[in-house]
Amino acid sequence: MIMTTTNLKQRSLLGLKGMAATELTSILDRAAYWDAHTEKQVSVLQGKFVANMFFENSTRTRFSFEMAEKRLGAEVLNFTAAASSVEKGESIYDTVRTLESMGIDAGIIRLKPAGILQELAQKVNVPLINAGDGNNEHPTQALLDLYTMRRHFGDVRGLHVTIVGDIMHSRVARSNFWALQAMGANVSFCAPENMRASDIPEMRYVSMEEALQADVVMMLRVQLERHASGMIQSAEDYRLHYGLTEERAARMKEHAIIMHPAPVNRNVEIDDALVESSKSKIFTQMQNGVPIRMSVIERALRN
Amino acid sequence: MIMTTTNLKQRSLLGLKGMAATELTSILDRAAYWDAHTEKQVSVLQGKFVANMFFENSTRTRFSFEMAEKRLGAEVLNFTAAASSVEKGESIYDTVRTLESMGIDAGIIRLKPAGILQELAQKVNVPLINAGDGNNEHPTQALLDLYTMRRHFGDVRGLHVTIVGDIMHSRVARSNFWALQAMGANVSFCAPENMRASDIPEMRYVSMEEALQADVVMMLRVQLERHASGMIQSAEDYRLHYGLTEERAARMKEHAIIMHPAPVNRNVEIDDALVESSKSKIFTQMQNGVPIRMSVIERALRN
Amino acid sequence: MIMTTTNLKQRSLLGLKGMAATELTSILDRAAYWDAHTEKQVSVLQGKFVANMFFENSTRTRFSFEMAEKRLGAEVLNFTAAASSVEKGESIYDTVRTLESMGIDAGIIRLKPAGILQELAQKVNVPLINAGDGNNEHPTQALLDLYTMRRHFGDVRGLHVTIVGDIMHSRVARSNFWALQAMGANVSFCAPENMRASDIPEMRYVSMEEALQADVVMMLRVQLERHASGMIQSAEDYRLHYGLTEERAARMKEHAIIMHPAPVNRNVEIDDALVESSKSKIFTQMQNGVPIRMSVIERALRN
Repeated sequence: MIMTTTNLKQRSLLGLKGMAATELTSILDRAAYWDAHTEKQVSVLQGKFVANMFFENSTRTRFSFEMAEKRLGAEVLNFTAAASSVEKGESIYDTVRTLESMGIDAGIIRLKPAGILQELAQKVNVPLINAGDGNNEHPTQALLDLYTMRRHFGDVRGLHVTIVGDIMHSRVARSNFWALQAMGANVSFCAPENMRASDIPEMRYVSMEEALQADVVMMLRVQLERHASGMIQSAEDYRLHYGLTEERAARMKEHAIIMHPAPVNRNVEIDDALVESSKSKIFTQMQNGVPIRMSVIERALRN
Repeated sequence: MIMTTTNLKQRSLLGLKGMAATELTSILDRAAYWDAHTEKQVSVLQGKFVANMFFENSTRTRFSFEMAEKRLGAEVLNFTAAASSVEKGESIYDTVRTLESMGIDAGIIRLKPAGILQELAQKVNVPLINAGDGNNEHPTQALLDLYTMRRHFGDVRGLHVTIVGDIMHSRVARSNFWALQAMGANVSFCAPENMRASDIPEMRYVSMEEALQADVVMMLRVQLERHASGMIQSAEDYRLHYGLTEERAARMKEHAIIMHPAPVNRNVEIDDALVESSKSKIFTQMQNGVPIRMSVIERALRN
Repeated sequence: MIMTTTNLKQRSLLGLKGMAATELTSILDRAAYWDAHTEKQVSVLQGKFVANMFFENSTRTRFSFEMAEKRLGAEVLNFTAAASSVEKGESIYDTVRTLESMGIDAGIIRLKPAGILQELAQKVNVPLINAGDGNNEHPTQALLDLYTMRRHFGDVRGLHVTIVGDIMHSRVARSNFWALQAMGANVSFCAPENMRASDIPEMRYVSMEEALQADVVMMLRVQLERHASGMIQSAEDYRLHYGLTEERAARMKEHAIIMHPAPVNRNVEIDDALVESSKSKIFTQMQNGVPIRMSVIERALRN
């Protein structure tokens, strides 16, 4: 299958920044189709080879993509950097070009270094799907978040969504910001000064008190070791100021929901008892990840 | 497929303690069916997704399960903790719930911490198969051991089986104890004081001399570093007192067999020359593991 | 399928030393068949189980074999030592015998210790394919190199090929030497004294200047840490004396090509700008690896 650059661009999914609401909606709609599909496995992608290229470890994301690929009937090959010659200094680019040379039809890629994915996608001739790009974007996570909100509330337009935590390091926050804005939601953020994202000045920050008034309170995973010099020095401190405690959750709106991209630090960003509470959509998000990824992979490989 | 709790309990295989002889026999019989099956691969589990969730490394056990799953036509997804966010502190429970959310039909699980598997199985809604649970149980290993004995002797009832080695840390010894007792075999153990299992007082210990008189002499892998304070201080010492040396093997009954769950420490618990001797069933055990696991996995996913 | 020893020997691929030109040509011809095959996946090996047993890490080689196996419709099981009981001291032999017992139909094996592969192949009853054997041979790499040369030049006979770099540690150099000689090419080598292969006195060494006059200039990956006591002490030094710089490449013959088994140390053994230059066949080599491996695996499992 020879693809033109434009064609490839349309098939790849590098980020949600700049993606129109119609395109987002079309991905969500197709996910809904797969979600409702009763057959566990179809042969839509039979004979197609998809590589999961994880230059950064992740259980759940790789597993979710693999489920999606196999449900669509694709052949799956896993590559992880830890078991590879990337250790020996080989560049990510050389690896991706290598796997492309070997005949993969699409690549799912997760990587740490910022700013190389766009260039990479221009150089290879197979569609790439971003499964986590440094601090930049994590589009399938935001899509599954949108899908979860849409299923719960019927529509994303007009929803008040607050994202709480380490915005600075969060590709989830960034992808959600772009997508939620495009879909007409009201997005705000809540974070200590040293965890804010200075690269996106349009982000509006609110207090924890105001955050609790949203329809969707999305908590992010915090890694305190990244903020050694900040005001927040301990897990207890973080929970005290920015954690979704049981007490705080009790003040959320009755219809509001709790989200988290997982894995959760129980009793740090969110209290243990809330993880599987009636308000929580955390495991529902993971469930929704599979049809979302089916939709995105099918989009990459459709004829 | 919605499963009731009772139903799920019957499909899961957490341990052999308390399992009736009829149930054990039914699993062995179905393994014999698969063992005799000439087709390498069938479509019995086509469209079913099985996750191998290994929170503790193991080549042979994961590989054996994967062979069994693929021979039955299932889709297989491997998860290993070393390449996962479990490193980042995520609990085993959260991981298993996550993989369940993503739509697996059954999970094979191996884990180190004792006492969490039972609780886990009650919380998830897919059948779980124990592939090694701390020092507690390793049911598929004991089943393949039973199967190996039954194939060799025709019947397990009345057989004298002695299990030699680090009983304290052995889930293989425990699962064999429960299953062999249920099947009417006479089980005894042989171990230095500091390697005995104090949690099961019914276990009867015999001398190495007496152990050699059994129909089945099952040697266990020893890890001396676990017993720094014991009387046995070196591999040579262990071999001298508890090793199955060529000299000792020569005193075994003519029809008796040697077993070992592997991997073997050659010339520690068993002499190099015995591993593939005519008495040894060590590689036969591994061969039998595949039909046993086919039987157990099919049982978990039968309609 | 019961195989006689002779039969097995013919199916296995341990090395190219002593292989006749007719046999080499037959493998290349079948690779050309698969290369031209428009269907991505066939069912030639449906129901066959192939194990990739990598006792030494390698991304690209394992991935390339897996592509080949899956394109042929085989079931694939991956084993890597890093995640296995080999760490616990289990010998490679025991592992291979174990996987054989579990019912694999063929094994792809990569290992570091020299001199055990031949013995191993005599002891197991499934065909083995060498995916990298210490410093000894790497036959599928040399086959894909031959294939790449034949496709470019029409014929290998009479070609002047120079292999440059760490010949001493290179299984690629050795396999290419045997195969190129058998096919009637003129092979020479270029390396500093301390990187030459003393085990093959027939190897002819030339200066870098002469090396550049070949039809094929094959650069090898260098690992300077292996040569701490040599004359060449730094990457800059290596590049200066033995690197294929842009300046040197400009002096190559017009029709000549650059090859490298990859992964490349850019700007050490080869300048960055040359890797994807018009003379370079580096990514073409990787592409050709898949049909070559299909040919070799099919040969191992043909009825």
